[in-house]
Amino acid sequence: MSRIESVDVSDVRFPTSLELDGSDAVNVDPDYSAAYVAVTTSDGDTGYGMVFTGGRGNEIVSGAMESYGRLLLGKDTEDLLDDLGGASRLLVHDSQLRWLGPEKGVSHMACGGLVNALWDLKARRADKPLWLLLAEMAPEELVAAVDFTHIRNALTEDEALEILRRAEDGKAERIAELKRDGFPAYTTTPGWLGYSDDKLVRLSKEAVADGFGMIKLKVGGDLDEDRRRMRLARDAVGPDIRISIDANQRWEVGEAIEWVGALAEFEPWWIEEPTSTDDILGHAEIRRGVAPVKVATGEAVANRIVFKQLLQAGAIDVMQIDSTRVAGVNENIANIVLAAKFGVPVCPHAGGVGLCELVQHFSFFDYAAVSGSMEDRSIEYVDHLHEHFTDPVRVEGGRYLAPERPGISAQMQTASVAAWVFPGGAGWAEVGERAAVTGRRIAP
Amino acid sequence: MSRIESVDVSDVRFPTSLELDGSDAVNVDPDYSAAYVAVTTSDGDTGYGMVFTGGRGNEIVSGAMESYGRLLLGKDTEDLLDDLGGASRLLVHDSQLRWLGPEKGVSHMACGGLVNALWDLKARRADKPLWLLLAEMAPEELVAAVDFTHIRNALTEDEALEILRRAEDGKAERIAELKRDGFPAYTTTPGWLGYSDDKLVRLSKEAVADGFGMIKLKVGGDLDEDRRRMRLARDAVGPDIRISIDANQRWEVGEAIEWVGALAEFEPWWIEEPTSTDDILGHAEIRRGVAPVKVATGEAVANRIVFKQLLQAGAIDVMQIDSTRVAGVNENIANIVLAAKFGVPVCPHAGGVGLCELVQHFSFFDYAAVSGSMEDRSIEYVDHLHEHFTDPVRVEGGRYLAPERPGISAQMQTASVAAWVFPGGAGWAEVGERAAVTGRRIAP
Repeated sequence: MSRIESVDVSDVRFPTSLELDGSDAVNVDPDYSAAYVAVTTSDGDTGYGMVFTGGRGNEIVSGAMESYGRLLLGKDTEDLLDDLGGASRLLVHDSQLRWLGPEKGVSHMACGGLVNALWDLKARRADKPLWLLLAEMAPEELVAAVDFTHIRNALTEDEALEILRRAEDGKAERIAELKRDGFPAYTTTPGWLGYSDDKLVRLSKEAVADGFGMIKLKVGGDLDEDRRRMRLARDAVGPDIRISIDANQRWEVGEAIEWVGALAEFEPWWIEEPTSTDDILGHAEIRRGVAPVKVATGEAVANRIVFKQLLQAGAIDVMQIDSTRVAGVNENIANIVLAAKFGVPVCPHAGGVGLCELVQHFSFFDYAAVSGSMEDRSIEYVDHLHEHFTDPVRVEGGRYLAPERPGISAQMQTASVAAWVFPGGAGWAEVGERAAVTGRRIAP
Repeated sequence: MSRIESVDVSDVRFPTSLELDGSDAVNVDPDYSAAYVAVTTSDGDTGYGMVFTGGRGNEIVSGAMESYGRLLLGKDTEDLLDDLGGASRLLVHDSQLRWLGPEKGVSHMACGGLVNALWDLKARRADKPLWLLLAEMAPEELVAAVDFTHIRNALTEDEALEILRRAEDGKAERIAELKRDGFPAYTTTPGWLGYSDDKLVRLSKEAVADGFGMIKLKVGGDLDEDRRRMRLARDAVGPDIRISIDANQRWEVGEAIEWVGALAEFEPWWIEEPTSTDDILGHAEIRRGVAPVKVATGEAVANRIVFKQLLQAGAIDVMQIDSTRVAGVNENIANIVLAAKFGVPVCPHAGGVGLCELVQHFSFFDYAAVSGSMEDRSIEYVDHLHEHFTDPVRVEGGRYLAPERPGISAQMQTASVAAWVFPGGAGWAEVGERAAVTGRRIAP
């Protein structure tokens, strides 16, 4: 019999703040990091998961994963993998740990990292990439994996079954299409606030040449600057390429409506995170105030209960699920089926480190087995840090190619983990020396 | 010059699950615990703060407080204490740590524990109990301490100033009244799910005899049981004592409306936490469905932004602030002024360990300097674990007496910390031996 033998957590950080890749109006100096976990069974299989963070605090999430991981030690592997709905509830609804959220923040993300590692294990044992494993599961199995607690007034088990059963029609063809043609991507690479005008223009043109249909610009620092950069970008890509804008929760509600109005002449496709993602009513007001510009959010939405309300309130045009913010695969199935119920497209958040690798699986699954549509749907793409993964994303001609290797694509290169484990890795020793010379503050 | 010299965190837990004190439909076996912090200056002053948890996971919050505490080390004490709004923002809006919430869950609670310790330090230096320090601060100082980010569409700085200035009138008289007569309390002591009928009836009658005007019963496990226990309690206290009920987020929205309807004949005063406290729209629907029974929530509300929406949506009749869930004194000032703006009474959540000690200060401050009213307002009271504090609450005749000693009342007895530090304390060694005999699982 196979049991869960170990849960090994590593605090892995990359010194991205030195280059200002990933800088925006709120996250001014992130060191893209992963609380990285390996769950190993007594018969020698390992599943990998991770939680993305901005650097400082990665040790808090790592510690939380160790704490939650104790609940898995010694458990029967097959029991866990045959009932991943139960496995998720074991972690998320632990009677004492629940107080730490409930279902939000550090504790919820830690649960998600572990749940994703268990799905990785299940997909590896089935010898399938996660998206295909999910796409081929029966509707009843998928529904059993979802925790419907506190969302039943918007989506019942029966309604979810009906949505999934309807999507059985044509599923095989869509799977074949995904394997052949992949799924649309958009790129945030040109749009970071820290980039010079020349770099913005050059990267915007490159994005179009590379086949992307949409680019995204960070806004919210300074309105005149935003107008200038938006004009540069619009001139660079022409009228037919979509430009979305992202304020990273920078604004008050009224401020968001005014600011987006002042950028309207450049025809932004969506405004992302105009205000606090906790502010459901605020998003609804902003959506009414900025139409026809769409409103998108999700990377910081804590759980399915908040997504449910954003949909109920008519507060979003686009749901941006994140692969490591919520409690893993199970909760993202809930989010995707909720979006389908309300007819809202899912365009996952990615970037950071590992987020592209993990989240692509959800869009492939969504197209194959839930919404069955690619209309107005694309996955965010940022072209850094992929070299640290054993199964890195492949984006060609503006599209993600279908993951082919078994699992959830979260496994990192052993050498990368060794070099960038914090604070002891060789990479950090070198960065520390550089920082001492330049006087820059280095995390933590 | 004085600097912050150390931030010492202790993981203190009490084995309350052995007695089923504190058991409800969701929190079935809590070990009331405190992530306890002492912030010490180079000139030898110490401020104390804490975060309440349910046992397992107390180490996660403790670790988070150590991480955030590093941001305070070496800072000028007077600079921090003269601008506690700035001190709070330094922690809550740290550009990298922010990702862990933002402003929710473990990271936010950890910030709150530290912020409260700084307020404790400030109040001790001023030789005043916290409530009096706050009540005597100028409206401008209070407003400067509040973070208005993402609540300005409901409460601006100017509106807050106006509310606080209006309350200057009669403040001295209300402070004198508080010192003389205290503030109303209600008790949850009779109502835990784990108690026998005899104990429920006996404790309910004792509560009335002790002068309490309201008791609270836990519900949500089983409807027939709830009806039976509610009838017993109503018979025990008579028609004039209020009985509130608390479901600890147990229900779906529709279920809540039906369940409360089935208890209506026993005239519950409020239904507390009928569903997920993230569910603003759900609370609004429940409130419409259960009137005239009132809807109360707050102990698990993550931050001022969620409280803002609960008020905007007309979702609550009663705001139940918690002293260690949000980012400390500053954010609770925001919550209290928001409640005053919307005319909703604040009835703080307490119980657990240390929550009564801390939260009483907010109601005293609210009456003295914000709402100026005691109508439908009372502070929860549960009569356990107070002996571990150096300045324990004093409840007499159903009223909290005004705290008199300097600070926020969070300091624990040195012997208590030593005995119940987890897992090494002498108390836990003894409990471990008892548990080994009875076969009960002991945290973690």
